[in-house]
Amino acid sequence: MGVASAAMVSNDNPLVSGSPVANAPYDVLCVGNAIVDVLAQATDDFLDQHGLVKGTMQLVDDAAAHALYAAMGPGIEVSGGSAANTAAGIASFGGRPAFIGKVATDQLGEVFAHDLRSAGVHYGVVPAPAGSPATARCMVLVTPDAQRTLNTFLGVSAEIGPDDIDEDLVVSSAVLYVEGYLWDAPGAKAAILRAMDVARMAGRKVAFTLSDPFCVERHRDEFIELVSARVDILFANEVEIAALVGEGSFDAAVEAVGGMVELACLTRSEQGSVVVSGGGGTVAVPAAGVDEVLDTTGAGDLYAAGFLFGLVHGKPLAECARLGGIAAAEVISHLGARPLVPLTDLI
Amino acid sequence: MGVASAAMVSNDNPLVSGSPVANAPYDVLCVGNAIVDVLAQATDDFLDQHGLVKGTMQLVDDAAAHALYAAMGPGIEVSGGSAANTAAGIASFGGRPAFIGKVATDQLGEVFAHDLRSAGVHYGVVPAPAGSPATARCMVLVTPDAQRTLNTFLGVSAEIGPDDIDEDLVVSSAVLYVEGYLWDAPGAKAAILRAMDVARMAGRKVAFTLSDPFCVERHRDEFIELVSARVDILFANEVEIAALVGEGSFDAAVEAVGGMVELACLTRSEQGSVVVSGGGGTVAVPAAGVDEVLDTTGAGDLYAAGFLFGLVHGKPLAECARLGGIAAAEVISHLGARPLVPLTDLI
Repeated sequence: MGVASAAMVSNDNPLVSGSPVANAPYDVLCVGNAIVDVLAQATDDFLDQHGLVKGTMQLVDDAAAHALYAAMGPGIEVSGGSAANTAAGIASFGGRPAFIGKVATDQLGEVFAHDLRSAGVHYGVVPAPAGSPATARCMVLVTPDAQRTLNTFLGVSAEIGPDDIDEDLVVSSAVLYVEGYLWDAPGAKAAILRAMDVARMAGRKVAFTLSDPFCVERHRDEFIELVSARVDILFANEVEIAALVGEGSFDAAVEAVGGMVELACLTRSEQGSVVVSGGGGTVAVPAAGVDEVLDTTGAGDLYAAGFLFGLVHGKPLAECARLGGIAAAEVISHLGARPLVPLTDLI
Repeated sequence: MGVASAAMVSNDNPLVSGSPVANAPYDVLCVGNAIVDVLAQATDDFLDQHGLVKGTMQLVDDAAAHALYAAMGPGIEVSGGSAANTAAGIASFGGRPAFIGKVATDQLGEVFAHDLRSAGVHYGVVPAPAGSPATARCMVLVTPDAQRTLNTFLGVSAEIGPDDIDEDLVVSSAVLYVEGYLWDAPGAKAAILRAMDVARMAGRKVAFTLSDPFCVERHRDEFIELVSARVDILFANEVEIAALVGEGSFDAAVEAVGGMVELACLTRSEQGSVVVSGGGGTVAVPAAGVDEVLDTTGAGDLYAAGFLFGLVHGKPLAECARLGGIAAAEVISHLGARPLVPLTDLI
């Protein structure tokens, strides 16, 4: 099965044709690490000197985080976190998102909560008490080629557990969207699997992003089982899907993933995206135009925002993918991983 | 005395022709409030609803700061503080600046110290112990016309006192540069006056910025006495100098200030700047070109950085003013009050 054009294949929105997603107070409940990004410019030499692999995310402990921070240049703090960026993007489209993720009782926790709520995202998680680890930080090193290299100190974010998952909120959301990065937080997994079961039992859809190729490598067997058994809508870029299914060519990966999941949204940077239906069809949509790519952080997160906003609002798959591309194009045209202009203005 | 062109008047650098500023380990010691800026986009309606006067700085207490923060949109945290921005600008020109200002032992204090040091500024002030007020924050509301409206919670910054002033550092710096905003911090004044005396006794130059027209109104009599008795180099924009000398026309203000101080650098936005020598001459320099003005925060701070860098490095006054204009033009072309590119690349 090759990648066909939109006109040749099924374009059905499974939230229209299939499941009872109407009457949900929230469009999408996003669950992920609650992170404040610290953006700094860096040279390729700096990455080499610190043994960093460009374009990927690595986890750092407190000591390594302090050492890297001391070495890097002046920063800009912006609320981030992959799934939280997706929630902010859905709000920017005029949707009704909610977010679950854990912050500490500290200044960066206050910043994270403020920025999410003021963007229009429902966020009701209680901050961890004083004495807990600090709010998560991600040092985002942006090289002159606009690529970003992420160094994440998870802090209290990794302590998310069953008590943090509001099951009423899961039931009240048309889609539960979970980031793969949560598998790096040991306590999170059981809570997330339970949330996925609750969503499924309520007739909601479960969406999942593979997050990062190294994240896929760390959790490959579990991700394959998870995607096959519990996920309806999968998000991945070319490298991530290849890491998951173990196929080198994109066409082979498309074929493999088609048998695993109801819908797979595969992003291909400037080549746009391909939506693979488990029923057998593919929809390929070109990328939206960008004048200048300044910082690719958040491209995948915002693609998911546009796609899920479209899906919940009953758009055909090609339109969902187009909305994803528009949101991704906006966010890579400036520093930071959340939209600077209302995405409703762009559609 | 009208404003004449550079060719008609004295262009002498008083640090070359006059005082013994050579052999100073530091070019400029900047003293001011240590502040992290929280930048957010805002509409004119938002300013009206909250009774904010566009283009000015108001002080807010803890409760008012929280109320305004809750109401405003998502923010970006960037290290700021007027004199600290000037120090960062001097470092960006390749100069040797130092900074004195007070932060708390909290996350934003860590951010402030990191950003200043990693920009190349010497910063050795010990953070206030736990239990002190928080690190200062300034909510910067940027309206679509690129104007900024500042709402400052001074926090621990206002507690700067004699123990925070390292007199060896004062003696070791060719110029002591002080922001007028410090007069809003009750404990600071005595310490600053002492520092000015130490600098003067060591044969160094004392520079001062009026900071803000409302700040001038709050402290006018003291500022007049200060400028006449202790300041060698004064920085002000048109509105601030008019507030100080009580003259409506710019030419009248130029004449009045010429009798008060050795050098006055008066900035006029897109009309460039005029340097007034106490000896009787003026040097007018046009503004540097800017493609698009995005955020005027830091324009005056960076003008002072360029001017003082030039002055300490023996440039003629017209060249000092040109460097100031270049630095100001860079910083108003993007969000945030510190340069994003090395200023050495622009000269």
